[in-house]
Amino acid sequence: MTRPIHGGNLAWAAKIAKCLPAEILDFSASINPLGPPESVLGAIQSNLDKIRAYPDPQYGELRKALSLFHKISPDWILPANGAAELLTWAAFDLARLAVTYLVTPAFHDYQRALSTFQVKVKECPFIFAKNQCIFPDLSSCQIKNGEPAGIILNNPHNPTGSLIKKDTILFLLDKFQLVVIDEAFMDFLPPDQSASFIEQIADYPHLIIVRSLTKFYSMPGLRLGYAIAHPDRIKQWQKWRDPWSVNVLAVEAGKALINDKKFAEKTWNWLTAARTELFNNLQNIPGLTPLPSVANFLLVASDQSVEYLQLQLLTKYQILIRDCASFPLLGDQYFRIAVRTQAENNRLINALREIIK
Amino acid sequence: MTRPIHGGNLAWAAKIAKCLPAEILDFSASINPLGPPESVLGAIQSNLDKIRAYPDPQYGELRKALSLFHKISPDWILPANGAAELLTWAAFDLARLAVTYLVTPAFHDYQRALSTFQVKVKECPFIFAKNQCIFPDLSSCQIKNGEPAGIILNNPHNPTGSLIKKDTILFLLDKFQLVVIDEAFMDFLPPDQSASFIEQIADYPHLIIVRSLTKFYSMPGLRLGYAIAHPDRIKQWQKWRDPWSVNVLAVEAGKALINDKKFAEKTWNWLTAARTELFNNLQNIPGLTPLPSVANFLLVASDQSVEYLQLQLLTKYQILIRDCASFPLLGDQYFRIAVRTQAENNRLINALREIIK
Repeated sequence: MTRPIHGGNLAWAAKIAKCLPAEILDFSASINPLGPPESVLGAIQSNLDKIRAYPDPQYGELRKALSLFHKISPDWILPANGAAELLTWAAFDLARLAVTYLVTPAFHDYQRALSTFQVKVKECPFIFAKNQCIFPDLSSCQIKNGEPAGIILNNPHNPTGSLIKKDTILFLLDKFQLVVIDEAFMDFLPPDQSASFIEQIADYPHLIIVRSLTKFYSMPGLRLGYAIAHPDRIKQWQKWRDPWSVNVLAVEAGKALINDKKFAEKTWNWLTAARTELFNNLQNIPGLTPLPSVANFLLVASDQSVEYLQLQLLTKYQILIRDCASFPLLGDQYFRIAVRTQAENNRLINALREIIK
Repeated sequence: MTRPIHGGNLAWAAKIAKCLPAEILDFSASINPLGPPESVLGAIQSNLDKIRAYPDPQYGELRKALSLFHKISPDWILPANGAAELLTWAAFDLARLAVTYLVTPAFHDYQRALSTFQVKVKECPFIFAKNQCIFPDLSSCQIKNGEPAGIILNNPHNPTGSLIKKDTILFLLDKFQLVVIDEAFMDFLPPDQSASFIEQIADYPHLIIVRSLTKFYSMPGLRLGYAIAHPDRIKQWQKWRDPWSVNVLAVEAGKALINDKKFAEKTWNWLTAARTELFNNLQNIPGLTPLPSVANFLLVASDQSVEYLQLQLLTKYQILIRDCASFPLLGDQYFRIAVRTQAENNRLINALREIIK
């Protein structure tokens, strides 16, 4: 069986653990364990009948809901079949430039999308010390005279969990002809800590912001994301892609969740406490060093082989962690885990203690 | 308001009819009025919980179900977020050839996908007589010496409803380097009348068959289709596209509907009788001439302006028909209607009689 390049592959894990996919305790996909909210489940159930008709190709109602939430005009917003669909069209845009800088380690799907359109890629690696990681110094990167260049990165950064500061993004916006920021995990930060560039989008026609709604609202199976970018680009992407890419149940879920403030508050409260406790517990296991994170996941450096740890966790405890074999910078010395509920986090901690003792 | 280029745009129609989208009687989208089957609704309801996890990127279970149904190996099958997603990747393949022949009038989304990748297109128009249409004579089409050429068409043909014979397809397979057949409406033909090329797929590595499950099973809002093609091509498309394009509820619906033989039988019985009756009733209205159809829709030639008929039907009866303004070959003298239930068809017939009298 080929080792998966993404987290959340329960079919793969279940075969190794010799159990049903639903029996796996999944720390490999960074999904909010409190969801999906009742608002989402209710919206799906009460709108099942809508599958009989095509989605509105303009996605007018969902755009309006997102528009009110972000306080920007609907023509700057494009709903999508998950953020991954948007990466395809971002890469298609990047393919028009001479080169694209890719901040690594990176979500594997960037490379997929860039490869599809044979984008020339230059990697900019994070610098890893044992217990910290430093954003690459792009001020020294050589962009050939006048050569149009793009950059793609995510913020907060996956898999490290670090937040890239607004000043750094401003520097990138000044240096590059096209900047793609995947803010898939930004909503896990309470509003007063957010470093989102959505509020500034009107000033940067060469900025594309990609957002996901599946992680915070725990519905990766339903697929829902959106892009925020200049209306000319949004119109262009609509002409390129197929007209009905977002299914109607995702539309109804999106309209409901965007106003679910209680669920958001509950998530922020849980995350702050649970992440701190998980971090401290990991730090107390000999040979494990978690990196500081603003997101709902932790990157952990390990003295022991992660392939070994992963196999032990799967076969003995039916627990799945995200190995970093698909990130060349990280390899067998790092793993990533989602922050889950206190009880689930403790199951992982206890299992790790028993394996590592 | 821009006139839509696809059928089924209820948001547009509702604004003109001054009613709710759900109040429109929609003849413009060619959807089976008997569905969605209980098997589909049940599968969605009992698997709602699966939205918490990512879809299996290999779509192993759905592929297996389709594989058993068609009696071909799963690696020849690629599930998709509706047939429209597949048209994108078919066009990306066609873009490698010098020219693509497009049989017209054509489903508008072919042109969208071909334009995305700037495919050089040569149109091959059907020949229209008042009460029949004749497949273009491609034996006379000039393909420059050695120039690799592709062709895209659908069978049964939309919007005419005519069936392209197997001999014609064999001729195309001999003449073209890549043949894309969209069989979106093929399952409306009872098995003994089918002209599908799925059984022959193993003999033609340069054939791509595109299938839709949303029309026959009445779930265009949920999105589900699949491609059948050589495993090398399927693998290539999987590398190009995003990993989770089909949502988990569509997967569960697909696994359930493919075995719902009762629903299929019921549909074939209804269609044969309802189409004949609708055809005869239309033929008896002065100035209207329906074309013979094997599918679940009829193309109707009209002496009166279709824009006028469409507006009257919408504002006075909340009935939506598919104008053919987006098909340059047809224009204002043709409209397309889905075959619906006997009672609904009669509502349309009565409305047309009153408008045309």
